[in-house]
Parts: sequence; structure tokens; C-alpha cells
Amino acid sequence: MTSAFDWIDQRLDERRRAGLTRVLRPRRCDDRTLDLAGNDYLGLARDPRVTAAAAAAARRWGAGATGSRLVTGSTELHRELEEQLADFCGTEAALVFSSGYTANLAAVTALTERDTLIVSDQHNHASLIDGCRLSRARTVVAPHLDPAAVQERLTGRALVVTESVFSVDGDVAPLTRLHRVCRERGAALLVDDAHGLGVIGPGGAGALHAAGLAGAADVVVTVTLSKSLGAQGGAVLGPRRVIQHLVQTARTFIFDMGLAPASVGAALAALSVLRTEPDRAHRVRQAAKLLHNGLLGAGARVGEPGAAVLSLPAESPDHAVAWAARCRAAGVVVGCFRPPSVPDAASRLRLTARADLTDDEIARAVETITGRRLP
Amino acid sequence: MTSAFDWIDQRLDERRRAGLTRVLRPRRCDDRTLDLAGNDYLGLARDPRVTAAAAAAARRWGAGATGSRLVTGSTELHRELEEQLADFCGTEAALVFSSGYTANLAAVTALTERDTLIVSDQHNHASLIDGCRLSRARTVVAPHLDPAAVQERLTGRALVVTESVFSVDGDVAPLTRLHRVCRERGAALLVDDAHGLGVIGPGGAGALHAAGLAGAADVVVTVTLSKSLGAQGGAVLGPRRVIQHLVQTARTFIFDMGLAPASVGAALAALSVLRTEPDRAHRVRQAAKLLHNGLLGAGARVGEPGAAVLSLPAESPDHAVAWAARCRAAGVVVGCFRPPSVPDAASRLRLTARADLTDDEIARAVETITGRRLP
Repeated sequence: MTSAFDWIDQRLDERRRAGLTRVLRPRRCDDRTLDLAGNDYLGLARDPRVTAAAAAAARRWGAGATGSRLVTGSTELHRELEEQLADFCGTEAALVFSSGYTANLAAVTALTERDTLIVSDQHNHASLIDGCRLSRARTVVAPHLDPAAVQERLTGRALVVTESVFSVDGDVAPLTRLHRVCRERGAALLVDDAHGLGVIGPGGAGALHAAGLAGAADVVVTVTLSKSLGAQGGAVLGPRRVIQHLVQTARTFIFDMGLAPASVGAALAALSVLRTEPDRAHRVRQAAKLLHNGLLGAGARVGEPGAAVLSLPAESPDHAVAWAARCRAAGVVVGCFRPPSVPDAASRLRLTARADLTDDEIARAVETITGRRLP
Repeated sequence: MTSAFDWIDQRLDERRRAGLTRVLRPRRCDDRTLDLAGNDYLGLARDPRVTAAAAAAARRWGAGATGSRLVTGSTELHRELEEQLADFCGTEAALVFSSGYTANLAAVTALTERDTLIVSDQHNHASLIDGCRLSRARTVVAPHLDPAAVQERLTGRALVVTESVFSVDGDVAPLTRLHRVCRERGAALLVDDAHGLGVIGPGGAGALHAAGLAGAADVVVTVTLSKSLGAQGGAVLGPRRVIQHLVQTARTFIFDMGLAPASVGAALAALSVLRTEPDRAHRVRQAAKLLHNGLLGAGARVGEPGAAVLSLPAESPDHAVAWAARCRAAGVVVGCFRPPSVPDAASRLRLTARADLTDDEIARAVETITGRRLP
């Protein structure tokens, strides 16, 4: 008997033959592998202060928000998190979403109208690209990390969209120069700081602080609560009127459920840890540098990390898969990126540092990844 | 000094003048208003078994998933929830997302290719509409609840998209007839059961069970974990190959962080409550009927609820706002829907029943909403 989904077998076969089948690998609670693949940069997802805050918020406020944010899904805890996030990142206001993905969809669509030109970095994240697709605006793609190319493309009313720290390769956008170009042309700048918050800037205050742009009237930033803050969710931060406008118009805010109180509470606790232990941001960058130096010393090709993400090119998709599998078998989990989820068709391993990596763990990681023991 | 966001002031003014400004109203922890606006249909968001499970999961697995599902963000708890959801709803497999919104984006985009025709019900939710916009397929809109109109539009490879219980008015799609039409034409059927799971079908097993379609080879269903299950997140359920295909291709799965363990644990506990207390689904429908009968008896215009959502037409947007404000002042929170977030340009109040509403609360709600005391 045929079914309307028979075509899917063919797609699954094509992927299998190309060696591109993605596999879910649920981890166990007592998993002891060395994680160089996740985005828990500060080691806060399992910090007892953060998990206790998640637990307390669930008990006090409920397991769910019960409704969309404009109906019953806003609690005082959400309001507090929005105030704390804005304060920490130096913006007037913030708005919390159920994920970084929906925050990016909201920011791109709400900040553009039919006559806006979007200039989007070639390596931008899927959520920013989907935001461009959902917007009514016209999008042009600019070469990666190239303010001069952005400047050439800017005309009329425009929004420039970039990541601060690019998620796959970890390279860092020239925000100061990009902002100068935007200001010259009267364009707005949207920065996805998912991999910058908690890692770069003073005390981990993020990319805008690092670039001297915190509080700029023509800049909006998106962050996630699920990486350095160890929780779940996303947020848009910027001038108060921008946040007001998102409340009025952003479909992924208006028509999505509010973030679960446990995640709100966890993110608040993580921010509080970051304030009392500002050194954590320094430690994760330091760990990334040590990892980089070790890999270089062992002969690996690896660029200098601008934040906590490192990228190692592989010869081919098959080589990347085999390399990552060897690491996993040796107890080290690394990210493995292949087409089509890489910006440039080049397969690679992606490594992330954590603030709580020990020197021994870094040495073991280098040895496992390169196959060479360090002196 | 001008800024790139000056245009927003104008948009905010336009809204203010039209009386359409949306306002966030964070609720307090000790809020004692009568909630007829949320989607916590079974009263499980604050059930101690559910909140305790959320707290335990946060402590055991961490406050966040630490990565995307294909990297480090899948735990055994996610796998267990996916198995339990599939089992409860009678499908081969399930895939959990961070929100119902991202689950719908994934389902619509992954189940369509460039040559697919999407036939989308006129009243479909924003997330389904955005899914159509993000897909490469062509979309035609079919009149609301009209299988014959769907049949006329079906040609070639197609996906029919509908809600089971429509979120604003609570009316119910004729799924059996829609499915017959789909099968005749070899089309696939995608059903958003966000407001059906836990409410309709035997023991709350959802719309597909209610329509005798559970496990159908050409049907896919999306649900939320944030309504009847009192947590956060969404899921896509269907044939195993469809779920496999989503893992390979759905951008909002691949490039979003995994759902926070607390929400996974809470949803699992809520499913367990539903299994041991299947009467809850009956109780919420009973509460909706009592509310409906009371409102009718007091002279209100209100349609018979097919699930737990009731809709009361208002004369104008202003009237709807004033009506909802009067209810709120009297301690009863109701939903207020105005253009453009209504499917048909007609303003209305939206009421939701809960399994734990008491007779006294229903009487108080009727009196507050209609201004008439019942005999």
C-alpha cells in the first residue's frame, strides 16, 4: 500500500548513501565523557545554585507559564529576568522568548518592513536566515566579516544582521566598524550575541560591551539563555521603544507560550553567579586559548579563538565523521559539522571550551583529537 | 538626534490611536484571580506531582540541555518523553521541540518540497502560517472547516494543514472527512492538536484517537507540552520515517537548543497523571459545557464548545477591551482577541475551561462575564 509519505524513504536513502545521516545519541545522567561540544560555556547548567533556582521556580510558579506572554504567561519572575538581562547587558529593556530561535525570528521580522533592505552576513545562523525569509523585506547577503562590503550594499532604510561570535567557526564580527558603517548610512544593526554573552566583554557582559556599543540607540542584540546561562530560552535587548514594538508585533512572541518558570529562575540565578564571579568569562576564554595552544603545539590546523569556539578543518565529510567518532570512542565529545549545515561547504570539527575545564582535561582533549601526546 | 529606529515611534502611536496597544501584565505568585484565559486545561501546571518532577529533572539533568538535540542536547529523559508521547497518542514515533511554534515550523517545512501544494485552513495558527511561508511549497488557503473546498483544491502532491481544535474559537475540524479527502487524492494530513491533547479523545489521547486516525500512515500531528501537560515545548508525532526525516532536515530541530530537562520531566509526569486519571479529560469538557450552559442561560451569545475553548463575540474592539477589563477588575481573567490576531476581523472574548474549575467558580465567571446573576 502506498502512502503520502513514501517519498521520505527516498530522501532517507539519499542521505544514507551520502553518509550524511544524522543520529540522535541520548546521553545518560551519569555520562562521564569529556564534553567539548556543548554550549554550557561557564559550566552553569549543572551548577547547584542554578539547578536549585530552576527547581524552586518550578515549585513556586508552576511547571509551565500556562499561556502566551500577553495572556497569562507573564510572571513577575519573567519581568525580573528582563530587567536583570537589560541591566547586565547595558540596554534599556529586554524581552524573553521561549528560545533563541524564536527571539531571532522576532527581531528580524519586527525590525523590518516591506521597504527595508536586510544586509545579512553570509555565515549567519539558520534562525537569522529564517527571520529574513519570514520578513517582508528584501535580503542581500554580504561576504563574511566584511564591513566594506556591507557599506557598498547599504542603501535607503536598512537593517544589518550579524552574529557577534559565529556559531560554527567561532570567529568574531568587527562590530565597531560595522556600527560605524551603519551609523553613516542611518541603518540599524542587529547582533546575535548567543555565543558572546557570558564569554566576551567585561565580566561576560557580551559583545556590545566589548565593542563599546552597549546602549547604542540604533543597535539591537539577541541572546540565548541556554548557553552561558545554562538554562533555556532567548531574549531580545535594545532601546525601550524597540522592545515595546516587539510586544506589539512579533508573532513568535505574541503567539508562543511563555518561557517555563524553571528556565526563567535558572537564567536569573546564572546572571547572579556571573555578577558575583565575573572571572568566569575570563576563565572560559583562557581555557579556549590553552586548548588552541595545545592543538597548535600538536600540529593541528586551528585558528585563534576570539571567544570559546574553535574550528578544525577536516579533509572531507567522511573524514570529519570518522575523526569525531574516534574522539567519542576515546571519551571526548566534539561537534562534527558537514554540509549542508556549514556556511562554506567545508567539513570540520567544532570544539567549545568551558570555564571549568581542567588542565588535565585540556591535555587529554588535545591528545585525543590530534592523536599526539604533548611533551 | 535621529536614530534608525525613529519609525517605531510612529508605529507605536498608530497603535495607541487605534486602541490596539498590547500590554504585558506580569502576574504575582499569590495571584488569586479566576483564570479563564490560560491553556492549563487539566490544572497540571501547578500539580505538585508535575512541579516536583520538573524540580527533580533540573537537579538530576541540569537546568539546560547544554546543546542542540543532535550535539549534546538529547538526554535519556528526552528519549523517554518521546516514547511516552508516541505511545499515548498512538503514533509510531515522536520528536520533542523547545516550543509548539518551532514544532509547527518544522512539520510544515520538512513535510513539503518545492513541488508540494499546501492547503491550509483559513483560521490556522500563526505558527502554521509561518511554516507555510518558510516552506518552499506553494500555499493555498481553504475556507474554514470545509473538506469539500479542500478537495477542490487538492491536486498533485499535497499537504493539508489544519488545527484539530482551533485556538481562538475552539471549533473542531472534521478530521475524519478531511482525512478521507486526503486519502482519495494521495495527500498527507498535518493536524495541530495543541488544544486537543489532554482534552478530547479517550482519556485525553487527542484528536486523532477521537477521529479513529491514530497511527494512520499518512497523518502527522503536532502537540504542545505547554497546555494540557502544564510544561513547555512541542512535539511532532507520526510514522517513524517522518520523525527520522525531521531529524535530518527540520531547521528548528537541528539548529535550536534542546528542551530544558525540567520541562521534559514535567511533561512526563503530566502524561503519567493523565494515564492514571483519565477522567481529567472528561472533567475539562464537562466544565466547558457547564460554562457554556451558564452563559447561554444568562443570555450570552456563545457557541457550543467542541473542546475546552469558548468564544463570545463582541460588538467592536473597544467593546471587547472594556468587557475584558470589567471582568479583570472583578477578579476574572478572560482572553480578549482583536484584529489583527483574530482570523475573521471580529473581536471577541475567549474563555478556557479547566478540569479543576468548581461549580462556584463557573457561576461566578458567568455572573461576571454577563453581568447577570443566575437563579
